[in-house]
Amino acid sequence: MSKPFDGRPVVPGSGRLRPLGIDEAEITGGFWGDRQEVNSSATIEHCHDWMERLGWVGNFRAAVEGRLPQDRNGVVFTDSDIYKMMEGAAWEVGRSGSSDSDHRFSSLTSVIAPVQEPDGYLNTVFGRPGQPDRYSDLEWGHELYCYGHMLQAAVARARTGHDDEFVDVARRVADHVCNTFGGGGIERVGGHPEIELGLVEMARLTGEERYLHQAKLFIDRRGHQTLADIHWGRSYFQDDVPVRDQVAFTGHAVRALYLASAAVDVAVETGDEVLLEAIVRQWEQTIAKRTYLTGGMGSHHDGEKFGENFVLPPDRAYSETCAGIASVMLAWRLLLATGETRYADLAERTLLNVVATSPAPDGRAFFYANPLHQRVPGVVPSPDFVSNRAASSLREPWFAVSCCPTNVARTYASLAAYLATSDDSGLQIHQYAESRISTTIGGGRRVGVEITTAYPDEGPISIRVTETDGSPWALTLRVPPWSREASVEVGGERRQVGPGQVVVERGFAVDDVVALELDMTPRWTWPDPRVDSIRGCVAVERGPLVLCVESVDLPGGQSVDTLRVDPGSDLEESDGAVRARGSLLTFEDRPWPTPGPVVSGSSEVAVPLTPYHRWANRGPSTMRVWMPVG
Amino acid sequence: MSKPFDGRPVVPGSGRLRPLGIDEAEITGGFWGDRQEVNSSATIEHCHDWMERLGWVGNFRAAVEGRLPQDRNGVVFTDSDIYKMMEGAAWEVGRSGSSDSDHRFSSLTSVIAPVQEPDGYLNTVFGRPGQPDRYSDLEWGHELYCYGHMLQAAVARARTGHDDEFVDVARRVADHVCNTFGGGGIERVGGHPEIELGLVEMARLTGEERYLHQAKLFIDRRGHQTLADIHWGRSYFQDDVPVRDQVAFTGHAVRALYLASAAVDVAVETGDEVLLEAIVRQWEQTIAKRTYLTGGMGSHHDGEKFGENFVLPPDRAYSETCAGIASVMLAWRLLLATGETRYADLAERTLLNVVATSPAPDGRAFFYANPLHQRVPGVVPSPDFVSNRAASSLREPWFAVSCCPTNVARTYASLAAYLATSDDSGLQIHQYAESRISTTIGGGRRVGVEITTAYPDEGPISIRVTETDGSPWALTLRVPPWSREASVEVGGERRQVGPGQVVVERGFAVDDVVALELDMTPRWTWPDPRVDSIRGCVAVERGPLVLCVESVDLPGGQSVDTLRVDPGSDLEESDGAVRARGSLLTFEDRPWPTPGPVVSGSSEVAVPLTPYHRWANRGPSTMRVWMPVG
Repeated sequence: MSKPFDGRPVVPGSGRLRPLGIDEAEITGGFWGDRQEVNSSATIEHCHDWMERLGWVGNFRAAVEGRLPQDRNGVVFTDSDIYKMMEGAAWEVGRSGSSDSDHRFSSLTSVIAPVQEPDGYLNTVFGRPGQPDRYSDLEWGHELYCYGHMLQAAVARARTGHDDEFVDVARRVADHVCNTFGGGGIERVGGHPEIELGLVEMARLTGEERYLHQAKLFIDRRGHQTLADIHWGRSYFQDDVPVRDQVAFTGHAVRALYLASAAVDVAVETGDEVLLEAIVRQWEQTIAKRTYLTGGMGSHHDGEKFGENFVLPPDRAYSETCAGIASVMLAWRLLLATGETRYADLAERTLLNVVATSPAPDGRAFFYANPLHQRVPGVVPSPDFVSNRAASSLREPWFAVSCCPTNVARTYASLAAYLATSDDSGLQIHQYAESRISTTIGGGRRVGVEITTAYPDEGPISIRVTETDGSPWALTLRVPPWSREASVEVGGERRQVGPGQVVVERGFAVDDVVALELDMTPRWTWPDPRVDSIRGCVAVERGPLVLCVESVDLPGGQSVDTLRVDPGSDLEESDGAVRARGSLLTFEDRPWPTPGPVVSGSSEVAVPLTPYHRWANRGPSTMRVWMPVG
Repeated sequence: MSKPFDGRPVVPGSGRLRPLGIDEAEITGGFWGDRQEVNSSATIEHCHDWMERLGWVGNFRAAVEGRLPQDRNGVVFTDSDIYKMMEGAAWEVGRSGSSDSDHRFSSLTSVIAPVQEPDGYLNTVFGRPGQPDRYSDLEWGHELYCYGHMLQAAVARARTGHDDEFVDVARRVADHVCNTFGGGGIERVGGHPEIELGLVEMARLTGEERYLHQAKLFIDRRGHQTLADIHWGRSYFQDDVPVRDQVAFTGHAVRALYLASAAVDVAVETGDEVLLEAIVRQWEQTIAKRTYLTGGMGSHHDGEKFGENFVLPPDRAYSETCAGIASVMLAWRLLLATGETRYADLAERTLLNVVATSPAPDGRAFFYANPLHQRVPGVVPSPDFVSNRAASSLREPWFAVSCCPTNVARTYASLAAYLATSDDSGLQIHQYAESRISTTIGGGRRVGVEITTAYPDEGPISIRVTETDGSPWALTLRVPPWSREASVEVGGERRQVGPGQVVVERGFAVDDVVALELDMTPRWTWPDPRVDSIRGCVAVERGPLVLCVESVDLPGGQSVDTLRVDPGSDLEESDGAVRARGSLLTFEDRPWPTPGPVVSGSSEVAVPLTPYHRWANRGPSTMRVWMPVG
């Protein structure tokens, strides 16, 4: 390992922890390793094929050949999905050396680069005869949003060893944005935050201060009503209240979380403690009051928005896959800035219960929304079906708005970068996966470990030292808050540890093993009494996984809505399955408005529960995470 | 009374009961009388003023002056709101002889009529140079929808004694629709059902069979996918499944209910028992599984749609005012066809708890959505504020989509027509209001009654005979199912009666009094255990009114979400207020992901409850209908 490039998605200029890159951390198998392989062998190609098939790539060719606007296909922001897929391909080149992905990236570059105009502008929807003027629709036009994803793709490309034509294109785009939206230019913001993330990272990559300055300008301008008052109000795109003054994340969830991530980036680069504190405060409020048990964010289908505090309906949970990814991006930035384990706790919850829920096992179908309760079994979609976006009763091959599949692709390809960090004193492991980690800590010392585990399905995690110079350094392990008991064994000595983190500091020798054991006993989880929609319900979790009941596991495949569980009973675990005791009710329909009970029968049952991330893998079903008590 | 016109909104060719018109029934005061006065003196003018101010009336002037499309204002279906307001004005002329309303109707006719094209086409959005072609967007264009409201306005005008120019315009529109959408024409349907209602009523008014035939064509075509597969799917406009094959009302609630109402009209006129039975079956399923306690329908903001069975979140209840009105329209048609009191039961519930909730006491602000739970106090809207539509935390003066205010206006102006019916044997009273009713029954006999009551606030209802020829006839009174006890007194003799209807048949003399007494004892109401979102909650009703708790009645104005009630305690009633015993909890915020209870204090309380239709009349508040038990 230690590949000859800086493979980090996020490279803060300062902060408590130093991120490792995919040149320093490698997932070698297990839960995430399997998923990275599927992403590499199927998902990236699947996304590319669909975007060719639907003419989204063709939009760039049509631009060069003068066939726009008449030959344009897809929604206004399809350019961005190509960039996100390219970002995934770039990380994949870095991760596995995939020549397929390398070719994919280069060939798309040759399609896209000729579309760039002399002043750097690059978009397939605006500015040509018959198209609306450039930047004439900042609310919905998504030009700046598309640029943001292009810049992130370029950063991925450059940081995996290829400072190529696409990076040059992106640099010209970044310059163009600064020239156009700087002071004295168009002093407004784009409807969908994302450019800010791209600009900060380009500044970090290139050292170009004006990119950072422009990102800060965008952050500071937002909330000052430079965008129109649309159907959902300006809070939809966070233009109602300045970022620093907001109380909790509000409006369109992906927009809010990309914006917050960029605000952390700007705060870190400019030493703006007040801005950082504002985001931390909003994060705390959001986690406590606007976040699903799965880590999912954004409860409303209408406007893809955060709800008010405690509005977390399980059946109408939107919990968009992209919002989950954006939440992980934010948590990662806050973890790097502060070193606090709570951010890694949320990232784990979200990765395993939202992000991992989206793609099908074959990597060729996706959930866009991630509800916690499915009342009606879905209909198996045709492989040619392009859903609008959020039907999500079964995973679907593609969407007219297809942000989620490409977001999964880029996240999975770069996932190793989110496992661990370093500081002068040693190494911090935040996410447990079969992996190898190797980096340099204070004093130029090389340290490395190899992690063996069947996590998240099993609790033992074995960390074997592979590189060390014999002098003392600290291995810090996250102990998740759900682990009622946890222990760590070093040098034959086992001790109990509490939630938070455990630091093992010593003069390690190669092949020394630190063995962490987390408590995987399944547990009942009670909801916050202020969440109305799940009153009288309980959920079951096991380790970091949220479980659910699916109708395919009930007698006769009957609806999960007939189930009542008894949280006074012990959860049973056998043959790898968790079972909950309860009863199945029979309901009698009575003509309106007859009052009185409608329960006409009841039978006892011990129902098997399934990890939520696996739901709907066995075909159409009804499903519940929160199960009524009774 | 007995004005010289046929003032009925709906005139079926057959059916169990004969509707009375506003020439035969008059509301003289009380709950509905006050509202009719406000409607007459404020709401109709308010609607007209706003539609002038925003240029919606001006669109017709711009059409004549060749200033379209550049000078067109408002959403694509603003024409329809002018027609609905005109329908209200027409009924108002019939109801009160208002010369204001008469002038309003005539002056608008002179603005609208010149826009009609030689072949009958009339719309401000389509067909001119620079506008899209006529009928080029049947999904969203709303041309047929606008016509439907025009035809209903014309019917109102004709049936209140004015067969004037507007009626001629409407007749030409109806002919144009038949010519254009008949067999061999455009064999599709409009995205928003409504034309069908207008065509059937125009057929009834004019005797023109082809109008009825065209309505039947539209009903039969729908569900055969002649409309595009939009974002919300074809179920949004009921074009996924034929009307006869549907299981419950589905998709956009107002669309579904207008369609069902028209299907009843067509079934009644064509003797189509199968179609009628299909609608009855769908109504039964919808009432049992998709209807709020208030009678509200359509739970989803997203797509303004019916939810799946038992998806009835109180906080995200859309429960659009127009859907309530449409449900009353449907219930009325089913009542006329079948004579079954359950339809009048639902109409009462919906009129008193949805329709009456919408307008402010001054008739100049409206709820568009009618949620059963408000978590965050609203912000007082500026009198100049035009909301998009469904914010609805406080009543708002106007909306960009302003179907609800004009729908309230036409419904209130014609409300007397929904109180009673007749058949050969006598008179049936369905809704109790201070009123006078006078009509002719079998054998040409004149009968009449005067009703005195403080209903819905008090239980006694006194019906004094004002016209009778001494021979026996039947006075039928509805006994609502919620009245645990009910009695009727005739000729000094009182007897208990059960829910359904009580028939008093005798040779009445003038000034005979039939005294019905309904049980107004406040009662706890438990939810269907299949409705997840209100599990562990109870509501309180008193008579036909759903009550609610508002934060303005809690100590310190604290959020209603702190309240837990004790349904084991008796509801107290004193000084005209119902009080529920319970406790107010104090919640402690704990940082995520700390488990465990967050209740840190509790104090006993007896909270006053308010009729739901009055909520938010005292300024911004939080509000709950369903209160957690605890």
